[in-house]
Amino acid sequence: MKIGIVGLGLIGGSLALDLRPLGHQILGVSRRTETCDQAIEQGFVDAASSELSLLADAELVFLCPPLSAMRSTVEHLIPYLKPETILTDVGSVKASIVQAIAPLWPNFVGGHPMAGTAESGLSAAQRHLFAGCPYVLTPLETTPTPALEAMASLVGQLQAKLYYADPEHHDRAVAWISHLPVMVSAALISASAHEPDSAILNLAHDLASSGFRDTSRVGGGNPELGVMMAEYNREAILDTLQTYRQHLDALADLIQQENWQALATQLQLTNAKRNQFVKN
Amino acid sequence: MKIGIVGLGLIGGSLALDLRPLGHQILGVSRRTETCDQAIEQGFVDAASSELSLLADAELVFLCPPLSAMRSTVEHLIPYLKPETILTDVGSVKASIVQAIAPLWPNFVGGHPMAGTAESGLSAAQRHLFAGCPYVLTPLETTPTPALEAMASLVGQLQAKLYYADPEHHDRAVAWISHLPVMVSAALISASAHEPDSAILNLAHDLASSGFRDTSRVGGGNPELGVMMAEYNREAILDTLQTYRQHLDALADLIQQENWQALATQLQLTNAKRNQFVKN
Repeated sequence: MKIGIVGLGLIGGSLALDLRPLGHQILGVSRRTETCDQAIEQGFVDAASSELSLLADAELVFLCPPLSAMRSTVEHLIPYLKPETILTDVGSVKASIVQAIAPLWPNFVGGHPMAGTAESGLSAAQRHLFAGCPYVLTPLETTPTPALEAMASLVGQLQAKLYYADPEHHDRAVAWISHLPVMVSAALISASAHEPDSAILNLAHDLASSGFRDTSRVGGGNPELGVMMAEYNREAILDTLQTYRQHLDALADLIQQENWQALATQLQLTNAKRNQFVKN
Repeated sequence: MKIGIVGLGLIGGSLALDLRPLGHQILGVSRRTETCDQAIEQGFVDAASSELSLLADAELVFLCPPLSAMRSTVEHLIPYLKPETILTDVGSVKASIVQAIAPLWPNFVGGHPMAGTAESGLSAAQRHLFAGCPYVLTPLETTPTPALEAMASLVGQLQAKLYYADPEHHDRAVAWISHLPVMVSAALISASAHEPDSAILNLAHDLASSGFRDTSRVGGGNPELGVMMAEYNREAILDTLQTYRQHLDALADLIQQENWQALATQLQLTNAKRNQFVKN
């Protein structure tokens, strides 16, 4: 298959690394000519260009720009495409992307490969990045079956675990398991760091161990990613934050009331429920 | 030194394992005779008994019962002790313990060795459990200097990192870095698990990955420990919870207002501040 990739970063580069050895022809587009040169020299792609016209012959194009550039990328790309070309994106939120792109290009399948590393850029790309990881496709009722079948086949070739979801369902699910934890965790760091008594704050710095390290990890992560999540998944994050506050307040109320039996019941529940999210 | 240990679980057993090879004579007390037998057979102690009278000759006694049994343990122990015997406890909260025990036994030094494993009981005890970990001593102005010096020496022999703190400062610091994270994390599990749409909940179960795993870890931990923290450190937990809610609400407000610049500034701050708690 002749596959285009717009945006040669961690995800785009890793897609190229997995798909090219399977016999696909890979055409890469990056705004930066140095990235194009690197992609060709290091064998990521068969051809690369800073011009979207390179993709005129592509049968399928992975859209891997930042979420903020997704719509404009598609608008600039469309004039070069054959009508049968399949477009898919790799954005981490889906409803706003699908709403923006499906009307422009009916032969579009929203997608979210849920893999990554702490690094970014083409140099961070790696083979088998997607193997064993979830890859969610978010088709609409109007999505053409051949496009969906082509995507399902590629997900299989990447050895990823294929899930189908409504775009809004996807966004709410990732709000629970990915975006809400960032805000919950960031607020923990923010509140702790504002302890007004410097003796207590310094002691907290000294005594912090694995519990604080784990609970604060995602809240101390990449700030741009956190803002991007909030901006593109705003409604689901606000909604889950509101529910979260109710559950936090309920725990605080039990402690206030010294209702240790009910607190024990609640913590037994969270102990059990966590296993449904976190498999060993 | 003739050292008594009341409560032969993970902490008491690990103290014995480190101190006996250094030449100390170890006298262990456990309510369960099987634990006493195990402690003797496996060489944890020089002598063991279910009777506190075993400690009549002890120069220093580590109190390692559950927090709920600390005061009554001391009350039962005192009739057997010489006045010069030093008492110290290993409880994870300090103000309530110090307030309860110091009036009963002036030669008392509150302590908190901050080490542990997910396991409990004598069979989980291990050598060098405390090495490199914080060991907080919480003396009062009235604490006798020789008692404090003896404890400082033992902490050094355990190769732990010695800190001194006011009992209330200790409790507020551990509220920030240990007890508040449990409640923050438990509320995340509780809220997520109550997603009413089963399709979304099942998808969240399927997609949860390292971010949810880390943020939810301590909230899905031992329920008894969580209740114990809340019961014995209630005031500090409620206070830090209230501050936490203000910081969480501030983040939610920025998202509500779509103030992405201010959200970016906040997340840059949490990114930087986390490094003061979590050293690499």
